[in-house]
Amino acid sequence: MTSAYEDLERRFNRIASLGEAAGVLHWDSSVLMPDGGAQARSEQLAAISVTCHELLTDPRMGDLLACAEEEAGALDSWQQANLREMRREWLHATAVPERLVEAMSRATKACEMVWRKARPANDFAAVKPYLAEVLALVREEAQAKSEALGVSLYDALLDQYEPDGKSARIDSVFEDLAGFLPGFLDRVLSRQASEPEPHRPQGPFPQAQQEALARDLMQGAGFDFAHGRLDTSLHPFCGGVPDDLRLTTRYDEADFTSAIMGVLHETGHGLYERGLPERWRRQPVGEARGMAMHESQSLLVEMQACRGPEYVGYLAETARTAFAASGPEWTAENLRRLYTRVKPDFIRVDADEVTYPAHVILRYRLEKALIAGDMSLDDLPGAWNEGMRDLLGIAPPEDRLGCLQDIHWYDGAWGYFPTYTLGALAAAQLFQAAIRQKPEISESLSRGDFTPLMGWLRENVHNQGSRVSTDELLTEATGGPLDVQAFKAHLNARYLGA
Amino acid sequence: MTSAYEDLERRFNRIASLGEAAGVLHWDSSVLMPDGGAQARSEQLAAISVTCHELLTDPRMGDLLACAEEEAGALDSWQQANLREMRREWLHATAVPERLVEAMSRATKACEMVWRKARPANDFAAVKPYLAEVLALVREEAQAKSEALGVSLYDALLDQYEPDGKSARIDSVFEDLAGFLPGFLDRVLSRQASEPEPHRPQGPFPQAQQEALARDLMQGAGFDFAHGRLDTSLHPFCGGVPDDLRLTTRYDEADFTSAIMGVLHETGHGLYERGLPERWRRQPVGEARGMAMHESQSLLVEMQACRGPEYVGYLAETARTAFAASGPEWTAENLRRLYTRVKPDFIRVDADEVTYPAHVILRYRLEKALIAGDMSLDDLPGAWNEGMRDLLGIAPPEDRLGCLQDIHWYDGAWGYFPTYTLGALAAAQLFQAAIRQKPEISESLSRGDFTPLMGWLRENVHNQGSRVSTDELLTEATGGPLDVQAFKAHLNARYLGA
Repeated sequence: MTSAYEDLERRFNRIASLGEAAGVLHWDSSVLMPDGGAQARSEQLAAISVTCHELLTDPRMGDLLACAEEEAGALDSWQQANLREMRREWLHATAVPERLVEAMSRATKACEMVWRKARPANDFAAVKPYLAEVLALVREEAQAKSEALGVSLYDALLDQYEPDGKSARIDSVFEDLAGFLPGFLDRVLSRQASEPEPHRPQGPFPQAQQEALARDLMQGAGFDFAHGRLDTSLHPFCGGVPDDLRLTTRYDEADFTSAIMGVLHETGHGLYERGLPERWRRQPVGEARGMAMHESQSLLVEMQACRGPEYVGYLAETARTAFAASGPEWTAENLRRLYTRVKPDFIRVDADEVTYPAHVILRYRLEKALIAGDMSLDDLPGAWNEGMRDLLGIAPPEDRLGCLQDIHWYDGAWGYFPTYTLGALAAAQLFQAAIRQKPEISESLSRGDFTPLMGWLRENVHNQGSRVSTDELLTEATGGPLDVQAFKAHLNARYLGA
Repeated sequence: MTSAYEDLERRFNRIASLGEAAGVLHWDSSVLMPDGGAQARSEQLAAISVTCHELLTDPRMGDLLACAEEEAGALDSWQQANLREMRREWLHATAVPERLVEAMSRATKACEMVWRKARPANDFAAVKPYLAEVLALVREEAQAKSEALGVSLYDALLDQYEPDGKSARIDSVFEDLAGFLPGFLDRVLSRQASEPEPHRPQGPFPQAQQEALARDLMQGAGFDFAHGRLDTSLHPFCGGVPDDLRLTTRYDEADFTSAIMGVLHETGHGLYERGLPERWRRQPVGEARGMAMHESQSLLVEMQACRGPEYVGYLAETARTAFAASGPEWTAENLRRLYTRVKPDFIRVDADEVTYPAHVILRYRLEKALIAGDMSLDDLPGAWNEGMRDLLGIAPPEDRLGCLQDIHWYDGAWGYFPTYTLGALAAAQLFQAAIRQKPEISESLSRGDFTPLMGWLRENVHNQGSRVSTDELLTEATGGPLDVQAFKAHLNARYLGA
């Protein structure tokens, strides 16, 4: 006889398998689908999405969850955690009435389309009514999920990206950072001004050579091409499924440094997915713990490991050989300066690791106020510019470089932004603990070898899936919950030599 | 208020969209998926397949069909045809109990795996018990579908690939052909012996050049790369969906003739899909009429148009330019001889168009006897070899070249084989009618231009979807139902100059 729990595993396996199919189709759309396939593809993805929603909100699902929870004593700890995550997915899916799901899908599609033109046209007024519609629906969704989950409006949205995340925690962490960053940034900039300017190696760097180098570095980092690919797309991402990862990047033949570091960033995401517990593939507990932890893995590889002096030394030599180049711009020291250059600027996605948190803190404050109803969209551009001045000392001359730059809000992703910086903090904290526990990591990185580092991450992060909360995971791995100290220490060491 | 018919359209649209998703994933598996992704992919495809089956066999489906059929007077002729095809799909899906579907899936998977080793090992005995299990289940399935559809056992299987196909018709067509072919073949072979041997152009022909040539020829044939791609796979096929076609081929750098003709064959399949009625995308009536009509479109392009003297003249010159080659082996006459070479041999997929029907007739006779229970699998290798001797005058020295060569039976595809030759007959009949109605087709082909031919096919075949039966479609387009005369006339003209 099948227990309620076993029945649930079977159902969630189906839902996840369909979700994986959608993941591969998304990758295909971005990488190689001909333009004329867009309409059919959107029908395919809509059919999968509606089907998954129906499977998840099937009337029997609530009974099965209740029944399995009653018998939970007979389950082991992984199964119990799986059941907890099933309940979370079910709560999110059932909290929102069908009507709202459909309205949201229509509103975000319309808003995103208008935004794609409003951004280059620098026309916030054109997209504002569409954004207002999205925001109204997001607030309705937050209300519904807030009641179902028993948390605040903002936390109900945050829970979709960072399970169990709480804005009270984020407030205190971000206030600490916001207090620290401006002064720190001043010191970094004045120190940087006293050093020689780094020189950018001169291309052209043929795409095929960049790609071959990228593949070598990916393999050094532990990427297994029997379980993944590297392709080209307009926006780099890590797609696919844990055992069939689909990484993408884009190449600039005048400058190899950005594609290479982009690939290493996505490799961090990919290695996390691949290292998730194999026993729990296609079950909620087998998934990545959340977006903060996911970003921590890409930033740990990119920011902590690959922009560190040990790896940059290896990279300088490897790249020089790959491009058969020479000259003073190919020294480790020059490449290190290039890869740790700090410059306050308007665009988040181009920001360095010192100024990045300021971009995130600004967005977090604004979206919290908008969700709470403490601010109106009319005031958004002004509040944005003022916030930038406070945090980074610069104000965008136009909304294209300000509140129009990111797709998130226009596409309905509210409560997502803080995970970028939570991930940066977790990355620093995990890397610090890894090196403390395995001092050989630094030396191995100077040889481009990630084996010791990945061994530690596999055991302490990847293999944990969603068994425990982010804070519990960090406590088990590093001795304490998420904290800002390791990140500050990292910045101090890297940028001030302190 | 939604009518029963509208509800059905919505449901079938979902089912077809999921099926299209599976189609793209199948293409991905064959073209670029890393090996390590196989397990996850098979979970994804199984989830889609089970979901489609559940949607199709939903208990409300039978009522909706009955209800829509009662109100069918209010539907237009396309809607009525759509309803008829919905009923057919539903009958096939509901006729077979769940238990049998699962048993079949397990048995064919096991049998196919054993066959993959048994074929190169030449070991029919090893795979026989697995094939026996598959055959037993196929006969059970035929029994169930025979009762649901009110047709014979064999016709119930045939209906899956050739809707409304009847073995009584096939028997008479195939007997006619079987009487004609041996004598005709003798005359062709003796005529061929009296002519100079064709010379094969000497390579190497770099893959990139072959691919560029293939793309040019595809475009000339009407293929739109805004709605499709050409890639490489082990076995060439036409996958994807009508507005996003995924054609594949394989290249042999020593010989370009086979990849090029393979691409043109798949282009014929692709143009059919692309030309299906746009108004009826993702509805049963909007699908290709059946496998015979599908094969007729690839064979019409490959065998009727592209191996004909007009197009071969164009191809000889185009290929010579593409490969910057010269010499007597590049004349139109030599290429024509190469592309119409006839040689009785053991392997169906390598057969020329004269001997191909013999391979099909043999398989048709054998599978009919096996389904009817008139023959045992023990007698299969012997009966195969005897049949080859009767039809082609040669007998395979080993089962690898005989009853082990094709995957179809081992994979559960019984009732499929006759569609290859029905397609060849329909191709000749359609091409004859097209040229009769539009004499400019021949001249345009000598310029590599398919516009007039494709215009005729779009209107008379592609745009018809599944509105009428194969025989009705042929009658409307050519003046009569499927017949063997045009094919015989084609063979006589091409191979005996008669």
